[in-house]
Amino acid sequence: MSASIDIAVIAGDGIGPEVTAEAVKVLKKVTATEGVDLLLTDYKLGAEHWLATGETLPDSTIEALRGHDAILFGAVGAAPGDTSIPSGLIEREMLLKLRFSLDHYVNLRPSFLYDGVASPLADPGTIDFVVVREGTEGPYVGNGGVLRKGTPQEVATEVSVNTAYGVERVVRDGFRRASERPRKKLTYVHKHNVLVYAGHLWKRTVEAVAAEFPDVSVDYLHVDAAMIFLVTDPARFDVIVTDNLFGDIITDLAAAVTGGIGLAASGNINMDRTAPSMFEPVHGSAPDIAGQQKADPTAAILSAALLLRHLGHAGAAGRIEAAVKADIAGRSAALPRTTGAIGDAIAQAV
Amino acid sequence: MSASIDIAVIAGDGIGPEVTAEAVKVLKKVTATEGVDLLLTDYKLGAEHWLATGETLPDSTIEALRGHDAILFGAVGAAPGDTSIPSGLIEREMLLKLRFSLDHYVNLRPSFLYDGVASPLADPGTIDFVVVREGTEGPYVGNGGVLRKGTPQEVATEVSVNTAYGVERVVRDGFRRASERPRKKLTYVHKHNVLVYAGHLWKRTVEAVAAEFPDVSVDYLHVDAAMIFLVTDPARFDVIVTDNLFGDIITDLAAAVTGGIGLAASGNINMDRTAPSMFEPVHGSAPDIAGQQKADPTAAILSAALLLRHLGHAGAAGRIEAAVKADIAGRSAALPRTTGAIGDAIAQAV
Ligand SMILES: CC(C)[C@H](C(=O)O)[C@@H](O)C(=O)O
Ligand SMILES: CC(C)[C@H](C(=O)O)[C@@H](O)C(=O)O
Repeated sequence: MSASIDIAVIAGDGIGPEVTAEAVKVLKKVTATEGVDLLLTDYKLGAEHWLATGETLPDSTIEALRGHDAILFGAVGAAPGDTSIPSGLIEREMLLKLRFSLDHYVNLRPSFLYDGVASPLADPGTIDFVVVREGTEGPYVGNGGVLRKGTPQEVATEVSVNTAYGVERVVRDGFRRASERPRKKLTYVHKHNVLVYAGHLWKRTVEAVAAEFPDVSVDYLHVDAAMIFLVTDPARFDVIVTDNLFGDIITDLAAAVTGGIGLAASGNINMDRTAPSMFEPVHGSAPDIAGQQKADPTAAILSAALLLRHLGHAGAAGRIEAAVKADIAGRSAALPRTTGAIGDAIAQAV
Repeated sequence: MSASIDIAVIAGDGIGPEVTAEAVKVLKKVTATEGVDLLLTDYKLGAEHWLATGETLPDSTIEALRGHDAILFGAVGAAPGDTSIPSGLIEREMLLKLRFSLDHYVNLRPSFLYDGVASPLADPGTIDFVVVREGTEGPYVGNGGVLRKGTPQEVATEVSVNTAYGVERVVRDGFRRASERPRKKLTYVHKHNVLVYAGHLWKRTVEAVAAEFPDVSVDYLHVDAAMIFLVTDPARFDVIVTDNLFGDIITDLAAAVTGGIGLAASGNINMDRTAPSMFEPVHGSAPDIAGQQKADPTAAILSAALLLRHLGHAGAAGRIEAAVKADIAGRSAALPRTTGAIGDAIAQAV
């Protein structure tokens, strides 16, 4: 609730800078209106920065980032065909390193079908759920190896590491969010019929934490069954809590059924506030349309709203969300607008 | 091409026996018409069998199954709430044990949107692709463990094991199938920006095998991006090759967008024919509607067609598929029919 907020901005690659510029525009407007001082510090990171300097994310940068209240993140990643950058390097050494170093254990991804947005589903119903994706363990830990690489006898392993500590805190966060929503419904998703060790840790944890939230109803879906419901009955979901990889998969599908990743915002949240949380659109850097003012900045703008809410500025967050809602509702009639024009319209309306 | 075929039938649990009965009905009809002797041997396996005997899949049964030309499989699994059966036990100790023991390395799952079937997608386009899912390794190997179980210090791991041998044979199968289809397009799906060890084995293998199939065009999608395309542009897919877990997830979504798992057939295929292959509907045992003649036997019947094609009876397989196609085309107008009535109609038409 402080009257000043200090944000690190990592615009990144591709369309990252364009969409982040609009999010910053809206942040400036809403903080000015609310009388909140906004401090912005740009950090150059990403594929282009790596090409120029060979740096992905030095420890000194992580330390500097810790000094801010929150991080606004655009997108990183080289063009798919670009072989000058080792595939996945920036994603792992920069984006995932931030999530892990700053202990972003709640990867929060709201899914909402706005009035005026066309879903690819014929009969989507009311879609309004949030995915609480675990952000610091599971198959994302980078644990694994390769034996006899490049030979016919090669063996490659990937180890998913899951801890009671890590699962419990994210499961509790899922329950808390469910208990604060009108429907109070939690669906946990895993594949415990096959992944018995991790799956049963999740199962036992959900069962234990459920006792603390008697008003929340709980159900379980195997990840494959969740796929089916996400396209046949997405309205059934309220809060989904799931592991890092399943969450990655589910949230892209959720973004697609709610009209595309141009609208999907996310927060990488450290609920204990031992380090700044980071807010980013779910979409990637889309190098094919970069620099053309074609990208939709809405997801970046909605991510800025999540940032404000996390920092205690719920009023300002709500104003951005209302402005976005109104803007989207008018879109079907409108001509295509540039990235900047969308940002202008939303900034105007907040 | 032998004039007799010897099939092991594992009807299983829930709706398994009902839908398998219809597949057998159609098999009997088409083999009689074609002058092929059909030998059928029932095997009692599944959750009910486990409750009665404590047996999941004894080695002696696996040996007996090896004596048949192929296996027709219904569905297994207890009701979700049934706590008398350890969760996932039958799936792992029976279904997965069969896939692994009989080296079913190609889990083949065609996705086809039939005329007359409503897709949940508003504008599905022409959906006609096959997923070649790896069936014998990856996260399904049952490798992992748990440390300090039940304590706040619990650590649970799951190890995905991937071998050059295992990846290469299934990737080659994907290329071969792509090269035999008009569009000749292969999409491989993984998450190699995060799962670097397994992902790069897949990547290098695809690149190497591609050289043998210069007429096949290849593209790559991260599994999360594949989710988006499966609902926004499923027509873009021709052959998808992917790992065991990603394949599980993708094929349920593919079944959903093509009108539901009541229609999705699959083959667990040992392409080297060192053991019998097994054909099963993608759906589960659906205990909630078991014994009520409400289940759609179409997926089971289409699985029998895949079985016939695998055994060299392409003509008989084609007749079943044509009969199914015609039956489905008439469905939108028809009243709901019983499981048996659908089987009768298709058997009649082959
Ligand atoms: C870029 C990639 C590493 C990342 C992930 O897999 O988490 C992205 O897909 C996401 O969902 O934020
Ligand atoms: C029942 C289960 C073990 C199985 C799998 O995960 O492979 C099923 O979902 C399938 O797709 O055949």
